[in-house]
Amino acid sequence: MPSDIDIARAADMQPIKRVAEKLDIPADAILEYGPYKGKVSYDYLRSIQNRPRGKLILVTAINPTPAGEGKTTTTVGLGDALNRIGKRTAICLREPSLGPCFGVKGGAAGGGHAQVVPMEDINLHFTGDFHAITSAHNLLAALIDNHIHWGNTLGFDTRRIAWKRVMDMNDRALREITIAQGGVANGFPREDGFDITVASEVMAIFCLATDLKDLEDRLAKIVVGYTREQEPITTGDLGAESPMAVLLRDALMPNIVQTLENNPAFIHGGPFANIAHGCNSVMATQSGLHLADYTVTEAGFGADLGAEKFFNIKCRKAGLQPNAAVIVATARALKMHGGVAKDQLGEENVAAIRAGCANLTRHIANVKGFGVPVVVAINRFTSDTDAELEEIRAQAETQGVRAVLCSHWADGSAGTQELAEHVVALADAGTDAFQPLYGDDMSLWDKARTVAQELYGAGDIDADSQVRARFQELQDQGYGNFPICMAKTQYSFSTDPTQMGAPSGHTVTIREVRVSAGAGFLVAVTGEILTMPGLPSHPAANDIYLDQNGWIQGLF
Amino acid sequence: MPSDIDIARAADMQPIKRVAEKLDIPADAILEYGPYKGKVSYDYLRSIQNRPRGKLILVTAINPTPAGEGKTTTTVGLGDALNRIGKRTAICLREPSLGPCFGVKGGAAGGGHAQVVPMEDINLHFTGDFHAITSAHNLLAALIDNHIHWGNTLGFDTRRIAWKRVMDMNDRALREITIAQGGVANGFPREDGFDITVASEVMAIFCLATDLKDLEDRLAKIVVGYTREQEPITTGDLGAESPMAVLLRDALMPNIVQTLENNPAFIHGGPFANIAHGCNSVMATQSGLHLADYTVTEAGFGADLGAEKFFNIKCRKAGLQPNAAVIVATARALKMHGGVAKDQLGEENVAAIRAGCANLTRHIANVKGFGVPVVVAINRFTSDTDAELEEIRAQAETQGVRAVLCSHWADGSAGTQELAEHVVALADAGTDAFQPLYGDDMSLWDKARTVAQELYGAGDIDADSQVRARFQELQDQGYGNFPICMAKTQYSFSTDPTQMGAPSGHTVTIREVRVSAGAGFLVAVTGEILTMPGLPSHPAANDIYLDQNGWIQGLF
Repeated sequence: MPSDIDIARAADMQPIKRVAEKLDIPADAILEYGPYKGKVSYDYLRSIQNRPRGKLILVTAINPTPAGEGKTTTTVGLGDALNRIGKRTAICLREPSLGPCFGVKGGAAGGGHAQVVPMEDINLHFTGDFHAITSAHNLLAALIDNHIHWGNTLGFDTRRIAWKRVMDMNDRALREITIAQGGVANGFPREDGFDITVASEVMAIFCLATDLKDLEDRLAKIVVGYTREQEPITTGDLGAESPMAVLLRDALMPNIVQTLENNPAFIHGGPFANIAHGCNSVMATQSGLHLADYTVTEAGFGADLGAEKFFNIKCRKAGLQPNAAVIVATARALKMHGGVAKDQLGEENVAAIRAGCANLTRHIANVKGFGVPVVVAINRFTSDTDAELEEIRAQAETQGVRAVLCSHWADGSAGTQELAEHVVALADAGTDAFQPLYGDDMSLWDKARTVAQELYGAGDIDADSQVRARFQELQDQGYGNFPICMAKTQYSFSTDPTQMGAPSGHTVTIREVRVSAGAGFLVAVTGEILTMPGLPSHPAANDIYLDQNGWIQGLF
Repeated sequence: MPSDIDIARAADMQPIKRVAEKLDIPADAILEYGPYKGKVSYDYLRSIQNRPRGKLILVTAINPTPAGEGKTTTTVGLGDALNRIGKRTAICLREPSLGPCFGVKGGAAGGGHAQVVPMEDINLHFTGDFHAITSAHNLLAALIDNHIHWGNTLGFDTRRIAWKRVMDMNDRALREITIAQGGVANGFPREDGFDITVASEVMAIFCLATDLKDLEDRLAKIVVGYTREQEPITTGDLGAESPMAVLLRDALMPNIVQTLENNPAFIHGGPFANIAHGCNSVMATQSGLHLADYTVTEAGFGADLGAEKFFNIKCRKAGLQPNAAVIVATARALKMHGGVAKDQLGEENVAAIRAGCANLTRHIANVKGFGVPVVVAINRFTSDTDAELEEIRAQAETQGVRAVLCSHWADGSAGTQELAEHVVALADAGTDAFQPLYGDDMSLWDKARTVAQELYGAGDIDADSQVRARFQELQDQGYGNFPICMAKTQYSFSTDPTQMGAPSGHTVTIREVRVSAGAGFLVAVTGEILTMPGLPSHPAANDIYLDQNGWIQGLF
C-alpha cells in the first residue's frame, strides 16, 4: 500500500467552496486559504445559530498502546460512511500541532484511505490558527514582564508568575529557562519556561469559546500571577484580553477541508488532552450540528481522559447532547492490554484478547454511565484472526454492545458502512440520555474522587496537605463550580503508565492543582505531565524534504 | 482627517483576483487568503520568468528623524500615480512585523490616502509568512540543542553556538536567557537569547532567494556554531535545510494586495535594515519587473543604509538594474537636521532648512554615484511655508536634481502625479548606468572603508585587533567575495545617532563582524544594535481592541 502522503496527494480534491455546498454553505460564507482550505465566516455562523441541531457522535478509544488504535482514521471513515449511506454528515477534528510533525509522530490527519486533505497543509501551518494562539499567548507574557519592568503597579510577586511562554515546536531546551538576564534594560531576571502551544490556556479557551465576545471574556479571567499577598492577577488587570482577541479574530472562524471522499470536515483547535480537555473547538462542533444531520467528532487519548472531558467539560459548558459514542479498539492493542509484548502481536492469542478486553469493557461501562449509547469499532488489521475478532465481539456483548469490524484504512467508507448503519440506528433510537458524571455543586475534591472511583476504578484519591489546602482555597475563592480536568497518563486507568488492562482499587495521588480560570476548569495533576516535548535522537525532521517538484515528502 | 484605519476600512476593495488582472495575472495563478489577499503561484511565476523586465524605481529617504519622512506612503502614492497616468505599475513593499504593532509604532502599511489594504491583516498575521520564518528558524534551533543532547557528534562548542531563537514580539525579557536548565532530561544549560523574527538570517535569506531551490541551498550554508577548533558547523551539517524549506514552501510565494486605489501591491518579506539588507523579497521584485512596466519599491531607513544595501547587496545579488531613485524628505525633518528642536518645527525657519539640506544633498550625491538618476519627493505638511519649500528645491538644484511637492497622504494619487511624471521621464531617459560601489574582489576591510568614506563622509574605519583579525580570518575562509552589510544607526551618517545633518571626517568603529553565510554577506556592527525591541511603559497593545462589530480598532 502506498504511503499516507502518496494517497493524500493522489486525492481528487474538490474546490473547498464546492465541498462546503454539501452542507449548503453558500460560497460567500467561505474565506478561502488557497483552493482547498477555508474558514466559515462569522456572519454566516450567526445566521444559522438558531437552527435545530443534528445528532452528535463521539469517537473515543481504549487506552492507547504502541500498537495503535486509529481514532482519527475511524472518525474520518465513519464520517465518509455516513455520507455514503446518504446521511448529511460533518466531521470535526483537532488541528495537528506542528512541533510533533518534526519529532516522532509525523502527521495527524488520518491515514490510509481515511484521511483529511490537503494533509501537508493541515499538518504544517494550515490556516495559521496555532500561530495566532502562540502570538496571543506570548503577547500576554511580554506584557506581564513589561508591566513589571516599568514599575509593577499591580504588585506581581515575580516568584509567582503563573504564565509561561509557548512555542509550537518540540524543544526540550526551553522547558526551564532563566529570562531577563543581562542588566537593567532587560528587566527583572526570573525562572520561566516554554510549553508547547497546544498546552496553552489560550488554546483551551479558544476551543471552549462560543464567539469572539465569549473568547475575550474568558481571556480576561486567566490568572497570570499572584501578588505577595497571594491575590490573583488576571489578564483583565493588564488589559491584555483585547489585543489578544484581536490576534485571534480570524483564527476563531472554523476551518473547513475535505476527506479523501470529498466530504466536509471541520478541523479547528487542538488542546492537550491531559492538562486541558483535548477536543476540537466548540465553534466547529456547533457549526457541524447546525449544518449537518450527523456530526462525528473525536476526543484525545482513551475514553478515561478524552471522553470523560468531552462529556464533563465540553458538553457541560457548551450544552451539547451527544447521541452515541464509538469506542475504537484493535486486536493488537487489546493483546497488549492482555499482557502480550509488542514483538509477539503477530501471533494469535485469544486468551490475551479476553484478558485485554477488561480495558475495553470498562470504557464501555463508563461511557454508558453517561447515558450515551455505545458501539465498538474494531479497526481491523490483516493479521487479526477470526477467533480473536469473535472474542472481542463476545466481550463487548457482555456489556450489551455490538462490536463492528472496520477496514476504512484499506477500503475507505466501504470499510465503515456497517459501523455507520449501526451508529445511525443507535443515535436515532432516542435512547440517549446524556448527563455529566457530577453536578456543578459537588465539591472540587469530590469531583476528582468521583472521576477516579467511578471511571478509573480507583479506591480513592490522595494528596499531601499542601495540595488539599489548595483544593480548599480554590473552593473558597469561588472556583467550586468548575469541573475538574484530570491530567493523568493516557496509558492506564491508574496513574502508572505500565498498568494496562483494568486495574482496580489503586490510589490516584494528586500532586498539584492548577487553575485555568479562563477555560473554566481546574487541572488536577497526577504523575509527570510533560508540557514541552523533546525531539528524539533521529527526529522526523531529518526525513522531511521538498522534492524536485516542490512537493513535500517524508511527512507521514 | 479620519484615522488611517478608518480610511482603510472605508476603502472600496476589489476581490484580489480582479486586482491581479491589472497585471494580467490569470485567476488560477492566485491562491486566495480570504477575498483580499493572495499569493502568486510558483507555476505561474515560472511561466513568466523569461519575460523582459520593466523599469525599477527605488524609494529611499534622508536620515529619519522623529518628525517623519513618509517613505512607505510615498511609495504607495507614487505607485498609484503611475497607474493614474496610465503606466502599468506594481508596488513592492516589506511586510510589517507583528511585534512593533503592539509597541510604539502601530501599523506599517502606509497612511492617510496612500495605504495598502486590508491594513489590519497586513499588520497582523497577513498570510503567515513571518510565522513560517519563525517556525523554520526555531526548528533549526531545536535541532541544534537536540543534536548536542543526543551526543554532539558534530562537536559543537556550546560556548560558540551562533544561532539564537526568534519570536515576532517585542519582548526584552527574552534578549538574554539561560536555557536547558532543570537537569539531564532538558539538555546542556547554556546562555542564549531571542531576536525578533525580522532579525533572523532566515528572513534575510528568504528575501534574497530566487526560488525554493536557491532558498534551500542558502539555508544549508548558515553557520550555526563552531567546534572547539573553531571550524564552522552549518545547517547543512545538521540536515536541517530540508525541513526548513518545507516550512517555508508556501511563504516564499509573493503576496499580492491592493492600494486604496485598487492598484496591485506585492508585500513580501521584511528583513531588518541594520543587521540585514532591509528590502522586500527578490521574489516580489522580480514578479513586479516581469509583470509591470514600472515597479516601485522601497528600502529601509535612510539612503545611507537602505539604498546602499539595496544597491550593493540586493541588486548585486539578484542582478537588478534600478532605473531611478526617489529620495523622500520633509521640511520638518530637514529642519531637525538643521538643528531645530521637535517642539519648534511649526515655525518657519529657512536657515535651518538650508543647513539641514546638507543631509539631503549628500544622499543625492551618494545615490547618483551609483549611476542612478534621482528626484526628491517633498512629502508636504500643511505647516510648510513656500519659502521653506523653495529652499529645498534650490538645494536639490545644486545637485542637478528636481524636488517635487507631494501630497499623497491627503490627496492620494492626485498628490503625486507630478512626481510620477518626472519619475517616468527619468527612468525612460536611458541615462541610468547602475553599478555597485565596489567590486566583489575588493577586500572585506576595504569594502567597509569604501562605504564609510564614500557614502558616510568618514575619515576612516577603525577596529580593535581582534576584529581586524576576524576580518582577515573571514577573508581567508573564502568569504572575501561577500558584500558588507553595515549595521549602523539609522539616524546619522556617523555612528553617533545625535550627529544630524552631514558630519564629515569621523571615524567609523567596527565593534564586531558576523557572518550571514546563507544570505551571503558579512555584517559589520558599529554601535549598539538592538535585535529584540522592548515594549514602552504604555504599549500600543493597550489601545487595540475589537469593537462590537468584531472590527479591529486602535491600530494606526
